[in-house]
Amino acid sequence: MEQRLALLVVGNEILTGKVEDKNTPYLAKRIWELGSRLERVVVVPDEIEAIAQELNALRRVFDAIITSGGIGPTHDDVTMEAIAYAFGIPLVQKPSLFPLLGAQHLEGKMRMAYVPKGASLIPTDDGTFPVVRMENVYILPGVPRLFQKKLEVIASQFSADPYFIESVTFSVPESWLSQALGAIQKAHPTLQIGSYPKIEKNPFVVLVTIEGKDAGQVQAALKRLKSSFPPEYFAG
Amino acid sequence: MEQRLALLVVGNEILTGKVEDKNTPYLAKRIWELGSRLERVVVVPDEIEAIAQELNALRRVFDAIITSGGIGPTHDDVTMEAIAYAFGIPLVQKPSLFPLLGAQHLEGKMRMAYVPKGASLIPTDDGTFPVVRMENVYILPGVPRLFQKKLEVIASQFSADPYFIESVTFSVPESWLSQALGAIQKAHPTLQIGSYPKIEKNPFVVLVTIEGKDAGQVQAALKRLKSSFPPEYFAG
Repeated sequence: MEQRLALLVVGNEILTGKVEDKNTPYLAKRIWELGSRLERVVVVPDEIEAIAQELNALRRVFDAIITSGGIGPTHDDVTMEAIAYAFGIPLVQKPSLFPLLGAQHLEGKMRMAYVPKGASLIPTDDGTFPVVRMENVYILPGVPRLFQKKLEVIASQFSADPYFIESVTFSVPESWLSQALGAIQKAHPTLQIGSYPKIEKNPFVVLVTIEGKDAGQVQAALKRLKSSFPPEYFAG
Repeated sequence: MEQRLALLVVGNEILTGKVEDKNTPYLAKRIWELGSRLERVVVVPDEIEAIAQELNALRRVFDAIITSGGIGPTHDDVTMEAIAYAFGIPLVQKPSLFPLLGAQHLEGKMRMAYVPKGASLIPTDDGTFPVVRMENVYILPGVPRLFQKKLEVIASQFSADPYFIESVTFSVPESWLSQALGAIQKAHPTLQIGSYPKIEKNPFVVLVTIEGKDAGQVQAALKRLKSSFPPEYFAG
């Protein structure tokens, strides 16, 4: 069923520009492919109060929240504590996680064996660390390769009817299109019609996208779009 | 003076993965260089209610909010309306903006001549479209080249004492470092000590960063970090 999702990205490194967040664009694309809607992304520092506050605000509004980052072994990994705090419950040790952490330097990894009380562990196919789920909050690692892998463990939960999309490229300024686009959007209120000037390449290249879950509507809007402008407006 | 900042990114295209958000990493780096703190990023769809709600939540907490996107000429550009709605005021037409819009197809650009009542216009050096400011909200365009240019118009307002940063690369798993890092963080509570496994390259490469506004503290923590581990822990 179509879900309304939010992503909570935890990490000082994103907010200071040390590391570029690759998980937001990846998740956005993947959730769209699955037919659900990513409606909010929030990036917070590694601070328990801030994470908990944002999580609670998102929980009130969205069907599911995915968190990214802050679940490693070091002092700046505080996501589990913050989630427990947000739910008003303690962290509990899960001895079943010990073997997955590896025996060497176990004391340095002990914080990774604690999860919010009542959380469920969703196993991975390959027997690596499970995805921790607390009610409608899915707790994923920040390292992109691991984030992507763990996302597939839960992806089926966000699977819904697919979106259909069509796009047309124009070679005129966006303002030449704005009135017709507004009229088409008005005639098809269930569609999303987007207009994206690509001025990095050329001041007069505009990508227009038409998307929605009803293929017939998308095609009707596309037809009207194509007949709204003279041939020279369209990019070759 | 050091400011606590939030960035509000407006755009369906970011949330559906059509366009990758380049403004967040750029702003994060630039604000850090200026000595201020980006503490929150929120990405919202092109919806007046959602934008206004998030803006009002951020205004309650942060010194300044920068918005990115949604100020072009098309129907999906609703940031100005949303900001006026958030402040509970109307949009007003600014005829002084007409010449900057260019005469051709002016009717298609008319919405770009409306700003929230009481907003101030911060002129650019080159006489292009000004930055619109409504109290502590700075309204910037989403196109990265323009975003970066307009950011420089207001950058001096976020200028403060600089951060000092040192970093060390290790070639062991993060868990081997976690206890010592925690102790150093505890001894230097005003510093930010970050630990970033670079497992995309190699499972055992960890970047540790030490940053803060007191250069002496940063150096003291660096010295302690270097003396906390045997030489073979450090990457060549």
